[in-house]
Amino acid sequence: MDATTRIEQALASAIDSVATSGCPPRLAEAVRHSVFPGGARVRPRLCLAVAAACGSTDYAAADAVAASIELLHCASLVHDDLPCFDDSPLRRGVPSVHRAFGEPLAVLAGDALIILAFEHLARSLAATPERLGPLLLTVSRSVGMPHGITAGQAWECEPRVSVEDYHRAKTGSLFAAATAAGAQVAGADADAWRVVGDRIGEAYQVADDLRDVAASAQEVGKPVGRDALLNRPSAAGELGVDGAIDRLRQLVKGAIDAIPECPGRDKLAEVLMAESRHIMPKDLAQRAA
Amino acid sequence: MDATTRIEQALASAIDSVATSGCPPRLAEAVRHSVFPGGARVRPRLCLAVAAACGSTDYAAADAVAASIELLHCASLVHDDLPCFDDSPLRRGVPSVHRAFGEPLAVLAGDALIILAFEHLARSLAATPERLGPLLLTVSRSVGMPHGITAGQAWECEPRVSVEDYHRAKTGSLFAAATAAGAQVAGADADAWRVVGDRIGEAYQVADDLRDVAASAQEVGKPVGRDALLNRPSAAGELGVDGAIDRLRQLVKGAIDAIPECPGRDKLAEVLMAESRHIMPKDLAQRAA
Repeated sequence: MDATTRIEQALASAIDSVATSGCPPRLAEAVRHSVFPGGARVRPRLCLAVAAACGSTDYAAADAVAASIELLHCASLVHDDLPCFDDSPLRRGVPSVHRAFGEPLAVLAGDALIILAFEHLARSLAATPERLGPLLLTVSRSVGMPHGITAGQAWECEPRVSVEDYHRAKTGSLFAAATAAGAQVAGADADAWRVVGDRIGEAYQVADDLRDVAASAQEVGKPVGRDALLNRPSAAGELGVDGAIDRLRQLVKGAIDAIPECPGRDKLAEVLMAESRHIMPKDLAQRAA
Repeated sequence: MDATTRIEQALASAIDSVATSGCPPRLAEAVRHSVFPGGARVRPRLCLAVAAACGSTDYAAADAVAASIELLHCASLVHDDLPCFDDSPLRRGVPSVHRAFGEPLAVLAGDALIILAFEHLARSLAATPERLGPLLLTVSRSVGMPHGITAGQAWECEPRVSVEDYHRAKTGSLFAAATAAGAQVAGADADAWRVVGDRIGEAYQVADDLRDVAASAQEVGKPVGRDALLNRPSAAGELGVDGAIDRLRQLVKGAIDAIPECPGRDKLAEVLMAESRHIMPKDLAQRAA
């Protein structure tokens, strides 16, 4: 089964396990709307690719970890789209959760997704309790305080912010968790893998900045030009489009160079190269080719 | 050390572990504001009382579980106070988090508290990994879908709602988790203890309804008369003040009758009786005496 199918099935199965009879129907609907149809599923695919490169054979555990990471990513998008943050009317080409279901259900769907991510991890790793704690810490740190996504979003509320800290927390942390957790689920050392995720996360952030200045809203599925409008730090703004494309390439190369010794090193390098082409806006990918 | 001191120390230690240097300062401040000064800490005290009654000697683990439950309770209050829900200007006698720090930080503080609850559990139970998974499931189910606090709040967004389902999810679930997790941390059977928490939770809900109609805003520390204003189901509204006081007594008696056989049964019964006097509004406690 390919990675995309495994991820979609793992996400559906996580949600099905709690969106059961007795659940408020609109909350269940809002949670599904937050997760399906999905975006590129970059983080869970990275997690599965690292687990495979490290020789993991516990597919169910790897799928659960990948799904938990994606659930947390979706939660952060739902809350980030709220009127008090970006007030985004669209996400992945459809109305954002608060536009489709109202603000209260958007707050609650985000909360429910965070909780589900941890519950799903606990349920899926019941047979290997010695792995649950370390995996849970890797995942929780990537979204909580002091350096996770929540902290990243909170930097937007500070009068002074280091652009590097901001991006590392808001975007990089969950990428680093994707590689670290992918290694952990295979019994490999997590720390050595964090830098791979860090660099891919940074590359992804540059690609996101590029999409914000250079792609169409239709291609991206959400409003573009928001960074300039909201006066947010942006690699494309600082380096120009060509400079940002160069930076993206260097980061992907850096990520590949940082891959620790493992059984599936070459295959993983190929996957990361393909990924870097995949995340670039279509027009720019042609220009960069 | 008494239960209150243990709980305050456990909460402070959980927050100190993530509100470290490098954390956005206002987020750290908003999180502390969400948790301190505390309310009655009813749920963590119940958790510790059950752990003690079951003969638990792992005080650090019991404190961590109790703190995690209180962190989740605080998170639910912060999100419930948001303008899109109750729009409450006050909580525990001081400005609510969104009034003190703005809406974005209130959303993020709630998220950070949920994440911290799970992270703190994982960190504190590292030495007993076989207990982490079951405890985490008890706690996560009490706040997530389909029957936890998030679901309880989501019933407010449905056109039709069973009052019983609403209260059981919004209030009862975390009380049931407090007793179940208190038993689990002592190695006792969780399920037998759920009904004790269920009934205490229902009693607490009745007391809350009574406070809303019969207490002063100064005593409660938040606006009163909200249930009638927001047309929410209320025991005091349905049964009248005297009927609700009777109901509260029956529920506490029912909780005490349901205490499973355990070393500290009599002491726990005393604690629950004291608790039931403690949660009633002062005027009514005199009237009921």
